[in-house]
Amino acid sequence: MAADIRASSLKQPVDVAEAVHGVPGDYNLVALDYIEPAGLYSVGNVNELNAGYAADGYARVKDISALVTTFGVGELSALNAIAGAYSEYVPIVHIVGTPATSSQEQGALLHHTLGNGNFNTFSDMARSLHCTLVSLTDPLDIASQIDHAIRECYVQSRPVYITLPQDMVQQKIEGERLQTPIDLSFPQNDEEKEDHVVDVVLSSLKAAQRAIILVDACAIRHRALAETYDLVRQSGLPTFVAPMGKSAVDETLPIYCGVYAGDGSVPAVRERVENADLVLTIGAIKSDFNTAGFTYHVSQLNKIDFHSRYIRVKYAEYPGVRTNGVLRKIVERMDKKSLSIQPGPNPHNDPSHDSDGKYGADTITHAWFWPTLGHLLRENDIEITETGTSNFGIWETRFPAKVTLVSQVLWGSIGYATAACQGAASAAKDMEGDSRRTILFAGDGSFQLTCQEVSTMLRNGLNPIIFVICNAGFTIERSIHGENAEYNNIQLWRYKDLVPAFGAREGQYKLYTVKTKNDVQALFKNEQFAEAKCLRFVEMYMPKEDMPVGLKVTAGLAER
Amino acid sequence: MAADIRASSLKQPVDVAEAVHGVPGDYNLVALDYIEPAGLYSVGNVNELNAGYAADGYARVKDISALVTTFGVGELSALNAIAGAYSEYVPIVHIVGTPATSSQEQGALLHHTLGNGNFNTFSDMARSLHCTLVSLTDPLDIASQIDHAIRECYVQSRPVYITLPQDMVQQKIEGERLQTPIDLSFPQNDEEKEDHVVDVVLSSLKAAQRAIILVDACAIRHRALAETYDLVRQSGLPTFVAPMGKSAVDETLPIYCGVYAGDGSVPAVRERVENADLVLTIGAIKSDFNTAGFTYHVSQLNKIDFHSRYIRVKYAEYPGVRTNGVLRKIVERMDKKSLSIQPGPNPHNDPSHDSDGKYGADTITHAWFWPTLGHLLRENDIEITETGTSNFGIWETRFPAKVTLVSQVLWGSIGYATAACQGAASAAKDMEGDSRRTILFAGDGSFQLTCQEVSTMLRNGLNPIIFVICNAGFTIERSIHGENAEYNNIQLWRYKDLVPAFGAREGQYKLYTVKTKNDVQALFKNEQFAEAKCLRFVEMYMPKEDMPVGLKVTAGLAER
Repeated sequence: MAADIRASSLKQPVDVAEAVHGVPGDYNLVALDYIEPAGLYSVGNVNELNAGYAADGYARVKDISALVTTFGVGELSALNAIAGAYSEYVPIVHIVGTPATSSQEQGALLHHTLGNGNFNTFSDMARSLHCTLVSLTDPLDIASQIDHAIRECYVQSRPVYITLPQDMVQQKIEGERLQTPIDLSFPQNDEEKEDHVVDVVLSSLKAAQRAIILVDACAIRHRALAETYDLVRQSGLPTFVAPMGKSAVDETLPIYCGVYAGDGSVPAVRERVENADLVLTIGAIKSDFNTAGFTYHVSQLNKIDFHSRYIRVKYAEYPGVRTNGVLRKIVERMDKKSLSIQPGPNPHNDPSHDSDGKYGADTITHAWFWPTLGHLLRENDIEITETGTSNFGIWETRFPAKVTLVSQVLWGSIGYATAACQGAASAAKDMEGDSRRTILFAGDGSFQLTCQEVSTMLRNGLNPIIFVICNAGFTIERSIHGENAEYNNIQLWRYKDLVPAFGAREGQYKLYTVKTKNDVQALFKNEQFAEAKCLRFVEMYMPKEDMPVGLKVTAGLAER
Repeated sequence: MAADIRASSLKQPVDVAEAVHGVPGDYNLVALDYIEPAGLYSVGNVNELNAGYAADGYARVKDISALVTTFGVGELSALNAIAGAYSEYVPIVHIVGTPATSSQEQGALLHHTLGNGNFNTFSDMARSLHCTLVSLTDPLDIASQIDHAIRECYVQSRPVYITLPQDMVQQKIEGERLQTPIDLSFPQNDEEKEDHVVDVVLSSLKAAQRAIILVDACAIRHRALAETYDLVRQSGLPTFVAPMGKSAVDETLPIYCGVYAGDGSVPAVRERVENADLVLTIGAIKSDFNTAGFTYHVSQLNKIDFHSRYIRVKYAEYPGVRTNGVLRKIVERMDKKSLSIQPGPNPHNDPSHDSDGKYGADTITHAWFWPTLGHLLRENDIEITETGTSNFGIWETRFPAKVTLVSQVLWGSIGYATAACQGAASAAKDMEGDSRRTILFAGDGSFQLTCQEVSTMLRNGLNPIIFVICNAGFTIERSIHGENAEYNNIQLWRYKDLVPAFGAREGQYKLYTVKTKNDVQALFKNEQFAEAKCLRFVEMYMPKEDMPVGLKVTAGLAER
């Protein structure tokens, strides 16, 4: 198509998508011809759900991503991934190749239709899961429609839906706009309103004796990390993260105090947070899995909540004020010396507190593994955890600096992590070549849903480290209901054997099995494992019933 | 739940679903506890899209099927499969486990939600793809709602959607209805109208000199096969099938003349059909892939179309008359002796006409393979073909009696066949134990989308024969556009190695590779292969560009 899907060049220092995720389908084939000439590349995912998850993973690492599907069959397969991105504020430009406008006007009985001549059914369904829909049917409008969609995608940080009919792909459209950067800036706050809110916050802060900061998902997803970082550093207040906010804060800072998740927190964290007289929450999403089952014990009278588009002080809401500007001014105007700093806990990656001796001393347990993992991790790593034990276990790992954690705690679709790993690893490679590591933790049950994305990693020459936690089924479901039910069991695979079966060439991969703590320690010390420029696949055996504390607490509530 | 999902016992001789397809998810776990006590069993699919396809395959063999998914993540993943079933009239009872009614009323911020408190988004989306939706929220209504949904599912032959909130699963509901069979009968035609239509058809039939019958999809999907069979047998008229109607007619009958698909047909078929002075079409769906790209050359003035709920004679439509009753009376009232029978072609499984010498004499080509396949097939086999070369190649195979062909020609979602094979094989096993063979043909590109359903086959002890056509990518897409484009290539897998990697035990499987015509012939003669009570997996190598004639013709049009 004449319009490069990047449309106009971007003003802000935004990492532009280079990868285009998706699967070829007959209504998008001609469009695919234009990917390479536009300086982009086709990832060639194995199916559309995986492609959607991968696009989500890519956008979490590299600002925004692109997904191409085909009408009906392709786009519907991707919907679960799109819903996850919508739910968790991940910007994906979703381009759907559709039949030609003439076929649509005639209501032709084409394949990939419901046979009823209605070509709007799928876009109508898509409306609830994308923040903006544009249908490219008139060459005069197309350039501005694409720019509009990209802006909405970025600014709202949610998926947008662009239908591209076959006969529009090669239409000539206005190219002038390509000289004008798309305006991707957030709307400015009303100055008087913003100043007022800043004053209110500053006076609360000044009055507080035991204030803390609690950083959550939307600080990341609505791009308030720089402002948050400055607030944390310059205030010196003890800083905690919610599970969905993990990796938002530099965990090497001495004022980093750990993960707060209500009753799922370690006692010292819980005590410090719940005894605070002021909690500044930044980007909170108080969902069940992010709060260990709604077990926060913090009075709203002690809270100031910074949300992407409103601020709440105690019970007073200030709508239409964006967090970014408010935080910036707070940092500029606060009198650091007047702040009362009461330190909080200083979590260590200490694996000595094992899980109550239920298993043999050598058994790899969650209580032991996640703190131990801290010793494998390095600055700049990307970790991906799955809706299962690893999403909860990772609470117990203190990260090096500049780590990015990719997980889907609110939407929580199993299978997400493995496919998201493909996208995250592609993003890392597009940004930094081979220097940034991507490390996946998937449970065996979850891995089975989307396993073939390992093939896409190989196809694209990606070198992630993959841990499959072999614990014989859906431990997260067991924790909720049916501990020994047959439906929570799975077919036991020879996971490692999939890598060569998926066509890995000699030298392109290394396989490992770890069954004991010693195995894990030896693996973590193995420089070849840590540094190899190839895909590394680890089967890690853990007991079927063992689970992280956070999951135990959360699940206890889910079953109620 | 107190109501068995089969609800009331069924009056008609309908094969009741025994398998329940799906994936466990926390909002459906408690419901899953009731599957076994109800005399059913959980299949335990690997993901929900696969489960949906499998349920579709099951229902095509065994009348109706059941699918259980979980709110949001699970149901959305299954939507593409559900859309296919809606499009192609396949009855699936889709049960979605949802959060408790109290959580929904509170708009709780639960996982698997969009985070906006709206619990209706997904059921609103489902509305376009299910013929009936019922939401089980009041124990007083539940029994009748379930019966209503099952009736609509069966009679309309389309998916229905039942939401089952967690807190409704263990409610006591009225059990009396279980004594009353659900009425699954089609509505009766108005007698006078039906008689009139029958007279009109009979007089056309009497006047025709070169009448033929053309059987299509809806004869199967709307259950007019018995009436069609009687019409074919008793009239003695030359009988053809459309691609979607293949296996609707006993192909061992001497009056079976082959597959008519417009320009995609063999010349003798095309000539006989297009020179007919009367074409009785039964259950026609004139979609692009079912007509080799809309290339029918039959005047409406020479046609009588029997549709499930209306009849069309030339240009006269008779709405509200169901085919079944009309056909029954035609058979009873026609004067067989007065019919003029002009015989048609008698297709043989003759592989001698190879594909124009483009490949070596030993190379397995489509022109050679599909007629040859006739020699492997046996009475009562189930064949599954994929949207790709096999959906078109199978036109050239004349079937033994009582074969069932499962394919998805209108919706045409790649990946369907492999997962549908799991369902079809389960259905065969539930009905006839080990005696009925299920044989899958999937292309390598398509197989990759849903490969892990082979694991579900192993888990359920199913013994299909699986042919993966190894031709290095998406040949159907190449035929349409981008013959040598990178996006139509795939990662080359070691397909056979997946079977043991998916946990197959020794003795549970046999692996084969065929690269030449001799290999195929030897395999087809191998009794052990034909009869083994284990899963048989064949890698069959064919040239990358080779394709059946029907696909060439159809694709030629698709690109225009």
